[in-house]
Amino acid sequence: MEVNYNNIKVIGFDADDTLWVNETYFREAEVAFGNLLVPYETLNKIDQELFKTHIKNLPIYGYGVKGFVLSMVETAIELSNNDVNAKTMQAILDIGKDMLEKPIELLNGVEEVLKELSKKYRLILATKGDLLDQERKLKKSGLLDYFHHIEVLSDKKESNYSRLLNHLDIKPSEFLMIGNSLRSDILPLVNLKAHAIHVPFHTTWIHEQVNKQETNGKAYKTIKCLRDLLELLH
Amino acid sequence: MEVNYNNIKVIGFDADDTLWVNETYFREAEVAFGNLLVPYETLNKIDQELFKTHIKNLPIYGYGVKGFVLSMVETAIELSNNDVNAKTMQAILDIGKDMLEKPIELLNGVEEVLKELSKKYRLILATKGDLLDQERKLKKSGLLDYFHHIEVLSDKKESNYSRLLNHLDIKPSEFLMIGNSLRSDILPLVNLKAHAIHVPFHTTWIHEQVNKQETNGKAYKTIKCLRDLLELLH
Repeated sequence: MEVNYNNIKVIGFDADDTLWVNETYFREAEVAFGNLLVPYETLNKIDQELFKTHIKNLPIYGYGVKGFVLSMVETAIELSNNDVNAKTMQAILDIGKDMLEKPIELLNGVEEVLKELSKKYRLILATKGDLLDQERKLKKSGLLDYFHHIEVLSDKKESNYSRLLNHLDIKPSEFLMIGNSLRSDILPLVNLKAHAIHVPFHTTWIHEQVNKQETNGKAYKTIKCLRDLLELLH
Repeated sequence: MEVNYNNIKVIGFDADDTLWVNETYFREAEVAFGNLLVPYETLNKIDQELFKTHIKNLPIYGYGVKGFVLSMVETAIELSNNDVNAKTMQAILDIGKDMLEKPIELLNGVEEVLKELSKKYRLILATKGDLLDQERKLKKSGLLDYFHHIEVLSDKKESNYSRLLNHLDIKPSEFLMIGNSLRSDILPLVNLKAHAIHVPFHTTWIHEQVNKQETNGKAYKTIKCLRDLLELLH
């Protein structure tokens, strides 16, 4: 399918797992949490319960590390049947602070691509993480100057993107979103008749996974590596 | 001092304690937390330690309820010398969830003022709280339609507002900020030569307090109630 990218004015980049490694750190945190709670339950059950609590709390805590840590605390209390002690709680808080202080590991080709595209387009970072956390990552990454600004979305559904386009004062056909999550970065944009390009990351959070039927016949492209963008947009 | 408000295009409103009650709920949470920890320390000492931990963690957790709850958990572990039990931890999580689910109590005249001003100006909500939490409050408040969008700032210093003006693509003289905190909503704007109007709330978080020298001779107005805005801007 031929897509025409000629009208694009603004390119939105997802941040976590599109520009830099993130999901890997959540997986590591889950392993560390499992090891803390293993006196009470099997690792498999601990994983399942943490996932359930995390999803249950999303409407109240939202995305990002802090809500995840609060969900770890809650899961520890429940799984241990109120037996978990203060030292384990402290270890959970430490897992969270470690996550917030991780170094930034850029994905392949990111800097080169942003440098090139920022000459021709207005680039924004569109994330549903925590603003403070994303600002910190952007500063550490050395990529700050390529972006016009950060847009924090409380979620990445059609209505959130619709408000974003309104706020940016551009038409859907003038916007291109690039990201690793079909559910959050691609499908809502396709439905709005904006452009979207999918760059898969090797790990996808279960909550972000979609089935084949949802992507069937949808108008978006998939590339292997961010570097492939340069060719597509030329 | 005569101030000319003729050039104003965009008005930024602080949210918490400017449009609706917020600080009161933090004070109530502190009281509830004190009652939980009173087996270990005096209420005064508990207050002091929570404040210290909260401030110490601001650079990593940022503002908002979730970071505050994580700081309560940390303070409980420290103050109890690792003796605090899971039930107390659960009670702390519950304090946090209660805060996130509080009803919205609008301050005097808010709706009338926003309705009037939204006819002539672009109104934005400029907050350093958590986006999800502020969106929820805005929806609950019934004020959503008066605002063009929400701007979440990771902090409210000159550099943050400077980026905001850049992003809004307006000159400082075209922006008016309205809020209850001299430190966060007023002084940074005055320093940028933008406009600012102070509407005090009866309680100010110690972290937001400023001394007389910092406000001496600064070009901003103070009003008693949001309703006074209508007269000032006519």
